[in-house]
Amino acid sequence: MSAVAMPLFSRVVLIGIGLIGSSLARVIKRDGLAGEIAIATRTEKTLARARELGLGDAYTTNPAEAAAGGDLVILCAPLGANAALAEVIGPILKPGVIVTDVGSCKESVIRDVKPHLPEGVHLVPGHPVAGTEHSGPDAGYAELFKGHWAILTPEDGTDPVAISAVCELWKRVGSEVEIMDAAHHDQVLAITSHLPHLIAYTIVNTATDLESDLKKEVVKFSAGGFRDFTRIAASNPVMWRDILLNNRKAVLEILSRFSRDLTAIRRTIRRGESDVLEEVFTRTRAIRKGIIEAKQDKIDEKMV
Amino acid sequence: MSAVAMPLFSRVVLIGIGLIGSSLARVIKRDGLAGEIAIATRTEKTLARARELGLGDAYTTNPAEAAAGGDLVILCAPLGANAALAEVIGPILKPGVIVTDVGSCKESVIRDVKPHLPEGVHLVPGHPVAGTEHSGPDAGYAELFKGHWAILTPEDGTDPVAISAVCELWKRVGSEVEIMDAAHHDQVLAITSHLPHLIAYTIVNTATDLESDLKKEVVKFSAGGFRDFTRIAASNPVMWRDILLNNRKAVLEILSRFSRDLTAIRRTIRRGESDVLEEVFTRTRAIRKGIIEAKQDKIDEKMV
Repeated sequence: MSAVAMPLFSRVVLIGIGLIGSSLARVIKRDGLAGEIAIATRTEKTLARARELGLGDAYTTNPAEAAAGGDLVILCAPLGANAALAEVIGPILKPGVIVTDVGSCKESVIRDVKPHLPEGVHLVPGHPVAGTEHSGPDAGYAELFKGHWAILTPEDGTDPVAISAVCELWKRVGSEVEIMDAAHHDQVLAITSHLPHLIAYTIVNTATDLESDLKKEVVKFSAGGFRDFTRIAASNPVMWRDILLNNRKAVLEILSRFSRDLTAIRRTIRRGESDVLEEVFTRTRAIRKGIIEAKQDKIDEKMV
Repeated sequence: MSAVAMPLFSRVVLIGIGLIGSSLARVIKRDGLAGEIAIATRTEKTLARARELGLGDAYTTNPAEAAAGGDLVILCAPLGANAALAEVIGPILKPGVIVTDVGSCKESVIRDVKPHLPEGVHLVPGHPVAGTEHSGPDAGYAELFKGHWAILTPEDGTDPVAISAVCELWKRVGSEVEIMDAAHHDQVLAITSHLPHLIAYTIVNTATDLESDLKKEVVKFSAGGFRDFTRIAASNPVMWRDILLNNRKAVLEILSRFSRDLTAIRRTIRRGESDVLEEVFTRTRAIRKGIIEAKQDKIDEKMV
């Protein structure tokens, strides 16, 4: 694929310009994937920063103004903002426009966005399984999506041309695309991403409550495993609040399985059942082996 | 410090030659820190591999034979083996010999090893806070300890010359040394290392129990956070069994705090208390900031 390929869209509209939105802006601009990029943000401050960074061609704090004339609108704000954004932009969207998003829950996007879209506008929910613990327009970079999965969850009956167009965008920014049902996506991600983040936040929170002398030592000797959890728990709080609340059912279900397993292992330690402990710690190696075979250990050390 | 410095010890005895033991052997040999290195292993197979790798000068499956004539004996087997090893080597140790170890719990080492040491033999328990998820003599490398902490937990009244000698060894292999009370060490490490490993093992174990279709997807999309847990949970099962059982009290205490916090956060999600969730996810960022300021995020991405 040549770097000066034909643009895929004439006007890509990014609503929200955090880590994901600004990474998309960078790679779309660099590779000429759109005729122009319109950026909408909630605050003047973020908008000014996006402009300083030269991320787009048009800048506004009015989402409807950004969306006007766009042929691809990408919602890149925290999930909790989707319903209000869709309500604002819905009326100005022309038939044939494609609306997609980058959120980590997909059923809630269909629930919150679809009711506001006029007839003939195509909704193709999307989720790039990529990210870092950093947030904001400065955190993005053009290579973020390279080698990562992008999952699309269009409903049955969605226009195949619209699905293909969104697929092509993700392929052109370096991702592999997978299409699945939104509910299934939410169940899988509850395990691979939402529960790990929740656990990491909780363990770091537990440490936060320690008396201050002990807390200092925990920071000092954090290289023993804890540090990896603090990195995950440094992710954007509003984004993660919205993810957990919008995938509540699947998260609570896997969390209850995890809690049950934790109670069992606690009992095992209390009773000193060394055989059981060794067996549990041995069987977990098989999953790691699967990940290495699936080459998921080779892609960069970033997270959703 | 010149690379061809005077040896610190005439005969260093490594009992156990896994990740830590073989890393020590490599750096001691490379930098001429000992006149000779004697290696004892439990199995003939590991011994043969250590010999093939040229890790030492003398090789035996008899710990007493290895320890004879040593001036520094380093116990590098899983913690559960310490009592039996000390019983075997105790009778042949001459006054003035220093015995140390590399285990992740320190009170248990004093409990298991000290009763078997003759008068005049110095016990200086040690713990390099370094490691990877790999095990065995092939996994070691000379740079493993560079930039990491090594914690020593000698009891009050221990010969200061013996403590200094062990300190010097850790400094020469690239570590920073900290001296603290064994009970305090065990409490800190329960939080920074033992709980994180236990949690990682548990979450991966929870995933192991999923129906096989879902499990396949979890492996495929593991880059969302789960993958980091599988890496931690790929650590040596016997070593971790022994760590958790030998630091049972401190681990159960922090585990019970963590479980309480997890129950609270679960309730918060169930009730949809978005303000509380955001507040919890925001306060965890302060600990990460402390780790970055303490430069503990800059040392390599390995774990205890």
